[in-house]
Amino acid sequence: MDNMITETIKNRRTIRTYSNKEIEDSLLNELFDLASKAPTTGNMQLYSVIVTKEEENKKLLAPAHFNQPMVTKAPVVLTICADFNRFSKWCEERDAVPCYNNFQSFIASLLDAMCFAQTFCDCAEAKGLGTCYLGTTTYNAGKIIEILSLPKLVVPVITITLGYPESIPSQADKLEIKAFVHNETYKDYTSDSINEIYRFKESLEENKKFIEENNKKTLAQVFTDIRYPEKNNVHFSKEFIEVLKQQGFMD
Amino acid sequence: MDNMITETIKNRRTIRTYSNKEIEDSLLNELFDLASKAPTTGNMQLYSVIVTKEEENKKLLAPAHFNQPMVTKAPVVLTICADFNRFSKWCEERDAVPCYNNFQSFIASLLDAMCFAQTFCDCAEAKGLGTCYLGTTTYNAGKIIEILSLPKLVVPVITITLGYPESIPSQADKLEIKAFVHNETYKDYTSDSINEIYRFKESLEENKKFIEENNKKTLAQVFTDIRYPEKNNVHFSKEFIEVLKQQGFMD
Repeated sequence: MDNMITETIKNRRTIRTYSNKEIEDSLLNELFDLASKAPTTGNMQLYSVIVTKEEENKKLLAPAHFNQPMVTKAPVVLTICADFNRFSKWCEERDAVPCYNNFQSFIASLLDAMCFAQTFCDCAEAKGLGTCYLGTTTYNAGKIIEILSLPKLVVPVITITLGYPESIPSQADKLEIKAFVHNETYKDYTSDSINEIYRFKESLEENKKFIEENNKKTLAQVFTDIRYPEKNNVHFSKEFIEVLKQQGFMD
Repeated sequence: MDNMITETIKNRRTIRTYSNKEIEDSLLNELFDLASKAPTTGNMQLYSVIVTKEEENKKLLAPAHFNQPMVTKAPVVLTICADFNRFSKWCEERDAVPCYNNFQSFIASLLDAMCFAQTFCDCAEAKGLGTCYLGTTTYNAGKIIEILSLPKLVVPVITITLGYPESIPSQADKLEIKAFVHNETYKDYTSDSINEIYRFKESLEENKKFIEENNKKTLAQVFTDIRYPEKNNVHFSKEFIEVLKQQGFMD
């Protein structure tokens, strides 16, 4: 058994272009059922999934993801939400007084949503599907909430675009495990250890090309100046905190 | 391939008691390597893992997890951290100005940490290991930061206790997929749909026993009054926001 699951994970790639092949409902449902086996806080399963298949709804969602083409081109788009609404409604129906309108409850439901999402992706990839996460979800959560009619105590945290791969891209480079594993206590990084950890990433031709295309001097500058710049980080931090307030998670 | 990964997930249980069998370093490293294949924000891999094997360090961590016995009895305890420190240090070494001292950057690193953690667990279980997540990590993050010497921009988000299962408990009940899957837009829950969704959970003998043992009238009251009560939710929300400020994620 073990070799199979590890082969799937070992060979995984993010898939951003999809063939025209439809995803059967039976497969999608099987994957939801499998993902529901993921562990969650007190087995409360504090998540929901909104399935978008209709063309017009994909078009509505696309701008919230800065019009990344996967949103309209994937056969299925899944918006994974932290959801304390369902559980709270159950409490209210059962003579219990829920108090989950706070930050720690948002974190619990976010953790649950991510355990569900990642198990979904691990299983989907084992079944030959390709997946791509869209981190833009928390940037424009307010817009997504409107489009999907999400009530209080429901916040979208990640989006998965899903489809059969049109082609298999090369695998992303990853840090060696010594880069992120610390024994017993955290050993902070030094100039030398940083050089060692990032040497391989910086040596790759595709990354050198990336620097050139963006007219930067270092790969790190592509991240700080272009991909994840201060202006966006600050702006979307404020927006997301407002969304958490609006959805009732900061009372 | 597909049947194997899905069998592992389909049969998964949270394992809270472990045999004396040690976990080989080679296996642990293989699992870290596999988990590192999980997708992350811009492939930045914004996480770190602190491995606790030493008896005395487990004893230090235990109170932060309300002395749940898994912490001292598991052969390996893994504290999974959202980590923007390593990446920021790399930027500083490369003539780039990082600006990841904000909430959206915390969320990005939390998402990355959870993708890593859940893929780790999926693979560990496929290899015959048992895992248990400790959600107490965000409750007492401040204490854990001290014990593990975590610098700024590093916050513990979940803990995994890991070992070979001593025995295989029964599987946790899970909601049917119609409980959490919404087509195109969110359909809010009604009294009827709540009754239907939670009927199975409420019918289980173990849950009826749980109500009786806790001297409550409904299962929901066990959650609201005992397991996740208002007092704790409010208190630990404030504490965790303070920790995020202290670690530099709310500037």
